[in-house]
Amino acid sequence: MNTAPTRSEAVEPPPETAAPGRRERKKIETRAALEAAALRLFAERGYEQTTIDDIAEAADVAVRTFFRYFQSKQHVLFGDVALDIAARLRAALRERPGTESPVDAVGAALGAMELDDPEQQRQVLERLRLLERMPELGGTYHMLFQQLHEVIAEEVAERTGGAAADLHPQLLAAAATGSLKAALTVFESTGGRRPLAELRDEAYGRLTAGL
Amino acid sequence: MNTAPTRSEAVEPPPETAAPGRRERKKIETRAALEAAALRLFAERGYEQTTIDDIAEAADVAVRTFFRYFQSKQHVLFGDVALDIAARLRAALRERPGTESPVDAVGAALGAMELDDPEQQRQVLERLRLLERMPELGGTYHMLFQQLHEVIAEEVAERTGGAAADLHPQLLAAAATGSLKAALTVFESTGGRRPLAELRDEAYGRLTAGL
Repeated sequence: MNTAPTRSEAVEPPPETAAPGRRERKKIETRAALEAAALRLFAERGYEQTTIDDIAEAADVAVRTFFRYFQSKQHVLFGDVALDIAARLRAALRERPGTESPVDAVGAALGAMELDDPEQQRQVLERLRLLERMPELGGTYHMLFQQLHEVIAEEVAERTGGAAADLHPQLLAAAATGSLKAALTVFESTGGRRPLAELRDEAYGRLTAGL
Repeated sequence: MNTAPTRSEAVEPPPETAAPGRRERKKIETRAALEAAALRLFAERGYEQTTIDDIAEAADVAVRTFFRYFQSKQHVLFGDVALDIAARLRAALRERPGTESPVDAVGAALGAMELDDPEQQRQVLERLRLLERMPELGGTYHMLFQQLHEVIAEEVAERTGGAAADLHPQLLAAAATGSLKAALTVFESTGGRRPLAELRDEAYGRLTAGL
């Protein structure tokens, strides 16, 4: 179930980081086991019918361990990918050089969001398929994009010296989130055949270049 | 409270439509009174604190009359403007000539959605302000745009002979809904100073021309 790399065990780790390294690895494993169990149960039984008890049991951990990793069932559904994404996008945007055009800075920041790991892409696909079957979660899904939209509009306004509610930052944020959503729709409808990063870059490039 | 035109009373109506005309006008008045009462109470007391009983009482009608016009409190919140908008957009798109480019057809259909009446614009502004104060309704708001997105992607795919989940229909749908949302954001943040239709046309034109 777990595919975390173990290569670091083969090389000699710096002595002072050996213990935290192992602890960190164990945490990543437990989190991955909880996510995998939850997504499998959601798919098998349905989201509503799956309890946190079920997830903890399937991952062979205590319920209190579940809550050490996830605040709620919804958090395990969307995962890191989505929940930290707004903060990661903001950090990536702030790292872009001030000389870059807003369109290029946003494009580069979208590309820095680490959606390219194959395991992460497989999970994104699984989550999109679940969402497809659970329209009641659609509002929550769209709110995640709304968070991204706000981060982009704020950061673009910061760069260009305007207000986030001005038309240009709003349009660039709409182009970024809209092309990301379009890429995810194509990614899902084609069963993940083309890498998500490639689809996202094409979608953003085409939309910002003009239809 | 009601601004329905009464000019038709001054001209002689065709005999067979006189009665339905009056009934129709009465229905429009009752609906408008319920909407106005609901929006006022939502603003004064908060959405959650307002009951359907309160709304009916303030509009001076029976609760069963409320339900003849609206399925729920949420329906009265978003109103016709939003709830019929997907069907109206589809009808408007199907009326566009097949020789028109998809970008032009979508732009023209967005323009045909009758958001230009001053009273309707005032209500849109009031609804946007309410939503601003009620983030819990954000998911529902975004789902309305999702409906528009799906209609556009389907109709564009129909025109171009592709699938709705292909990249081009998805991007054009994203541009249309994204520019509409951006126009609404600017409209709200500037207190409705510029007409919504003008903002929408500028937003759509700029986004589809390329940023």
